[in-house]
Order: sequence, then structure tokens, then C-alpha cells
Amino acid sequence: MGEYRVAPLEMLIEQFEQFPSIGHKTASRLAYHVLSMSEEQAQGFSKAIINAHRNIHHCRICCNLTDTEICSVCGDESRDKSIICVVEDFRDVIALEKTREFNALYHVLNGVLSPLNGVTPDKLCIKELLARLGDDTVKEVIMATNATVEGEATAMYLSKLIKPLGIKVTRLAYGLPIGADLEYADEVTLSRAISGRSNI
Amino acid sequence: MGEYRVAPLEMLIEQFEQFPSIGHKTASRLAYHVLSMSEEQAQGFSKAIINAHRNIHHCRICCNLTDTEICSVCGDESRDKSIICVVEDFRDVIALEKTREFNALYHVLNGVLSPLNGVTPDKLCIKELLARLGDDTVKEVIMATNATVEGEATAMYLSKLIKPLGIKVTRLAYGLPIGADLEYADEVTLSRAISGRSNI
Repeated sequence: MGEYRVAPLEMLIEQFEQFPSIGHKTASRLAYHVLSMSEEQAQGFSKAIINAHRNIHHCRICCNLTDTEICSVCGDESRDKSIICVVEDFRDVIALEKTREFNALYHVLNGVLSPLNGVTPDKLCIKELLARLGDDTVKEVIMATNATVEGEATAMYLSKLIKPLGIKVTRLAYGLPIGADLEYADEVTLSRAISGRSNI
Repeated sequence: MGEYRVAPLEMLIEQFEQFPSIGHKTASRLAYHVLSMSEEQAQGFSKAIINAHRNIHHCRICCNLTDTEICSVCGDESRDKSIICVVEDFRDVIALEKTREFNALYHVLNGVLSPLNGVTPDKLCIKELLARLGDDTVKEVIMATNATVEGEATAMYLSKLIKPLGIKVTRLAYGLPIGADLEYADEVTLSRAISGRSNI
């Protein structure tokens, strides 16, 4: 008994299965949706993929993702140029921008130090960061790497490079998230909240 | 304060948001994955979309989706040509094929009758079905439309067209699904299970 197979559909399902947390069922559903698109929509989707992939690259200054030579943050004259916030990933920039609290510049490392995985300092955008600290514009560098072993190690490594330049190096505050129940907080967060307590 | 925006990325996220049950967060995650692909992978993904969309069409005989003129089921000489199973959608064919129990032919209506939504008999692949019943090959037509109001109405409509041709028309059995708890079965299913009871 011959099986019912549609090769181009199967290939498309396989493509969707490559995406993170997309299993066979969801991949099939996404592929079926592509089949139900108009010719114009399918063309538009296909072009958006190529377009995003081809036109997005790293900002020449801060190594953030951008489709222009210099990203919109670095090109924004109204921002405070004396503070640089160092993050691991462009997604962190998006998260910080959502707060609408931070009106200075960023630097995206595009990874964290992880010698075991072959991520040595030369693999990250560190020399670009140091190049920005050459003139006396920058007064403070905020380390906003994640609170993981690698994130902390990267922050330590960078602070040892930057402090000798006479620039203040700070770290994001750690403690209880707003709205969290003390009861459910993990012990590491709680001990950081205790050691970092402030006067009221 | 200028916002951080990457137009091609936003366009790609918007495209993913068009998919069923994909919200902004998942769409972003999928778009980020596209950015992390190699040039070759992105090209492959983009091509798979166009390829599936362009090369998949309806089988000339059974109106099922196929990338060849006649689908692999209709072209399979080992199948029983005296039985046709009528389904709403190509996904139903995939579901039935998975059982490996059914070794006859299909006919895909590509929809169900729904006059209120403008789906009249001429919108479905009904004339293609009747064309297959012209010679005396087909002895039985199994209605496998879904057990919805529209599905039932479509099955009734078709059976009224087909029965006068002297062909047996059957419907899939309804009752309790295997492994289901009697306690949790809905009353319609349960009453169908009672009225359709058989000797053991």
C-alpha cells in the first residue's frame, strides 16, 4: 500500500520543526497555514525572511542588531552619552527599552564568556566596547549581563578591564522581583535581597 | 527619546503573528531564530515556503493536495477502487492514512456546505466526486465528514445525490472514543453510543 505523501509540504513541515519549541503538530499547523495563504502573502512571508536575514547586521558602534549602519539608539542625539549599559544580547536591549527609564547608550556583547564552550573574549564584542571608552565621554559602564555563572564572570572580567581606565563600573540591582511572594523566592535571590538591603 | 527599532525584524515578527495561535512573544522568538540561521538555512526556509505554495495543488481525480498531477493514493494501483471515502479536508486523509486500516480511495471536498457563509455545493469538489461515480467501479461511498452540523448536512446532501445511482452510502461509526471514561463523555456522544450499540 503506497503512502500518501506530498514532498513540498513535508519539506516545509521539516523547516518549521527546526524552530525552538515547535514540535511536529505545530509545525504541520504552521505549514498548512502557508498553503492557505494567497500567492501574494506567501511571497511576502518568504521575502520578509530573506529581507530580515540579509539586512540586519551589527551596529558599527554598539554591536546591537540594526538595518542601518548605526543603530537608532547610537544615532539618537538626545541620549546621555556618558553612560553605557553592557548587555549580552539584543533582546536585553528591547527589554530595557520597554522600561522607558533608561536614556543612555548600550553595548551588546553578543554572548557571554564561556571558555568551556569556546567563547573566549575575542569572540565577544569587547574590543568595540573598549574602543568607545578611549575618549573621556563615558563616565559609567553598567553591567547588565544575566545573573548566571557566565554572566557574572563576564561582568567581573569586563570590570577588571574598565576600572583601570578611571570609569565607574556598576551592576544592575538584584533582589526580589516586584509583586513576588517572599515565600516562593529562591534562596539565592533572597540572600541577595538581604545583603543588598537599603534604608527606607 | 528615539525608540530602538529594526524595521525588517518587526516586519518578520508581524508575518509570524499572522499564523494561527501565534502571539507576539512566540512570533518574536520565531523571528529571532530566523536571524540566528545561516544564510543557507534562511534561503532554504524561504524557498520551502514558495515551493510548497507554488507546487501543491489539487489532485485531478480526488481533489486532495498533491505536487503531482494525480496524488499518490489515486495513482496507487494496489488500492481497492470500489470504495471512496469522502472527507472535508486533506488533513482528514492524513489522519485516516495513519490508521493503516483503509486501503481504498478518498475524495476531498475541500470544505463543507455552509450556505450562511456562502459555501454552496458548487464551491466544493462535488462535481468531481459525481464524475468518479459514472462507471460501475465504485460500489460504496463512505461519508467521513466531521460530526458537526455542517458536516452532517453535507453528508446528507451527498447521500441524496449518490443513493439514486445505486451506490451504497455509509457513514463512519460514532460512539465512545477508545480509552475514554464514560463519566466524561458528552451526552450527544453517549446517546449516539447507545443508539449505535452492537451485539458482542
